[in-house]
Amino acid sequence: MIIEYDGTNYCGWQIQKNSRTIQAEITKAIEEMTGQKTTLYGASRTDSGVHALGQTANFRTQSKLEPARIQRGLNGILDRDIVISQAVEVPDKFNARYDAKDKVYIYTMLNGPVRTALQRHFCYYNPQPASVSLMQKAARYLEGRHDFRAFASKAGSYKDSVRTIYDIKVTGKRLAGNSRMIYFKFRGDGFLYNMVRNIVGTLLLTGYKKIAPNAVKDILKSKNRAKAGPNVPAKGLCLVKVEY
Amino acid sequence: MIIEYDGTNYCGWQIQKNSRTIQAEITKAIEEMTGQKTTLYGASRTDSGVHALGQTANFRTQSKLEPARIQRGLNGILDRDIVISQAVEVPDKFNARYDAKDKVYIYTMLNGPVRTALQRHFCYYNPQPASVSLMQKAARYLEGRHDFRAFASKAGSYKDSVRTIYDIKVTGKRLAGNSRMIYFKFRGDGFLYNMVRNIVGTLLLTGYKKIAPNAVKDILKSKNRAKAGPNVPAKGLCLVKVEY
Repeated sequence: MIIEYDGTNYCGWQIQKNSRTIQAEITKAIEEMTGQKTTLYGASRTDSGVHALGQTANFRTQSKLEPARIQRGLNGILDRDIVISQAVEVPDKFNARYDAKDKVYIYTMLNGPVRTALQRHFCYYNPQPASVSLMQKAARYLEGRHDFRAFASKAGSYKDSVRTIYDIKVTGKRLAGNSRMIYFKFRGDGFLYNMVRNIVGTLLLTGYKKIAPNAVKDILKSKNRAKAGPNVPAKGLCLVKVEY
Repeated sequence: MIIEYDGTNYCGWQIQKNSRTIQAEITKAIEEMTGQKTTLYGASRTDSGVHALGQTANFRTQSKLEPARIQRGLNGILDRDIVISQAVEVPDKFNARYDAKDKVYIYTMLNGPVRTALQRHFCYYNPQPASVSLMQKAARYLEGRHDFRAFASKAGSYKDSVRTIYDIKVTGKRLAGNSRMIYFKFRGDGFLYNMVRNIVGTLLLTGYKKIAPNAVKDILKSKNRAKAGPNVPAKGLCLVKVEY
C-alpha cells in the first residue's frame, strides 16, 4: 500500500501502548475489514508529527477481497488525515521495509519576517535569514556513502550506521513580503533515527554562518552527535516516496 | 493590513454573536494592544471555512505604535491560524472594502480516485471526472461585465448585481495515481454572495457533461439562481489577493 498522512495528531508511525499512531490505526482498520489479526510492515517508522505523501506498508491476509476493495474499505474506515493512495498484491516474500531501495524525504522551512497560517502544520518557521547557497555547498560533503553516526539521535544503538545519500537538493522559493520557503530534498538508501532532521539542523548552522560549509565534513568524520547541529522540528518533514 | 488565515475553525470573517470569527479575533487583539475600541474594515466577508492568503483590512487608532510594532504584537496575540503578513499606515480616508479595485480568488478541487489527507482542509474532493477543457470553454461566457444575479445565493438582496470578471482561468495539475488538482482562478472587481462557489458548481456541470458549455450563457442571462449549479464547499476557496 502507498499511504498519505497528516502526522499532526499522531504519535508517529509505530504502534505504542496508549498512543494514537498511524500503524495502529491502519492495523485496526484492516482487522475490522478482514476479521483477521495482522501485522503491518511499514517502510519507515516516521516520528511523531512527521507527515507522509508516500509511506509504504504491507500485510498478509487470507481475505479474498481484491486490493482495490480493501483500499476503498480502509479509506472509508480511517480518519480523514490518513488515506491509502494505492493498494496492490505483492509476492509473499515482499517486505516494505527490507525491500526498500531508496527513500525520498523533503524538509520544508519558512524563512522570513512572518509566520504562516495556512502551512503552519507543514513547515518549520524560523525568521533568521539562512543562505541557501552556503547550505548547498555544505550538503555536497554529505552526499555519498558514509558513516552517519554523527547525525543519528541514538548513535550507540546502531550496529551499522553506514548509509548512502545519493542526493541532497537545497532550494529556495520566493514568496511575498521578503519570505522564502526553503526545501531540503534527500534521496538515500536509508536514514538513521532523526538523521534527516539532524542534518537539516546542521546545514542551517552553515546557512546562518555560524560554521563554514566545510565544517560539515569534520562533523561527519567525528561520528560524534554532539558536534552536529540541533534536531529541527518534526512538522517540517515529509516522507515523499519509497522506491523498490 | 494584509492577512492570511486558515478558515477551518472559524465562522467566517464577519463578527457574529456567540461565534468565533476572524474579524472578532483580530478586533479583540487590536483592542488588547492599543487599549482602545476599534472597528476593523475588511475587503471581503469570507464565509465560514473559506481561507485567505491576502485578505486586507484597515482600522483607525490613536495609538502611537508603529505599524510594524502593531503587526508583531498582533501576531503574538493571535492564534496560529491567523497571521498579519503586512501592516502599513494608510490615508485617513482609506477603506479596505470600498477602495478595493480587484480581488483574486482561487478555488481548488481534487479530482481523482482517492481523497487527500495532507490537503483535506484546503480543497474540495470529488471523484467524478471533470473535463478541464469544457470548463475552460464555459468560463469564457462569464468573463466581462454582467448581471451575475443567477450566481448569487441571496439574489434578491442586491440593488446592483452587475460585476466585472476580468478573467477566469481553469487549470489542471496532474498528480500521482490518475488524480488531478483543478484550480479555478477568478479575478474581478467584486463578487456577489457565494458567487465564486456558485460559478464553480455551474462550471462543474459542464465538466461532468451534464450541460453544454454554452448553456452557461443562458444561465447567466436568466438571472435565476435556480438555473445555476450547486454551491461547492467553502474549504476549497481562498481569497488570494486584493488590489487597490
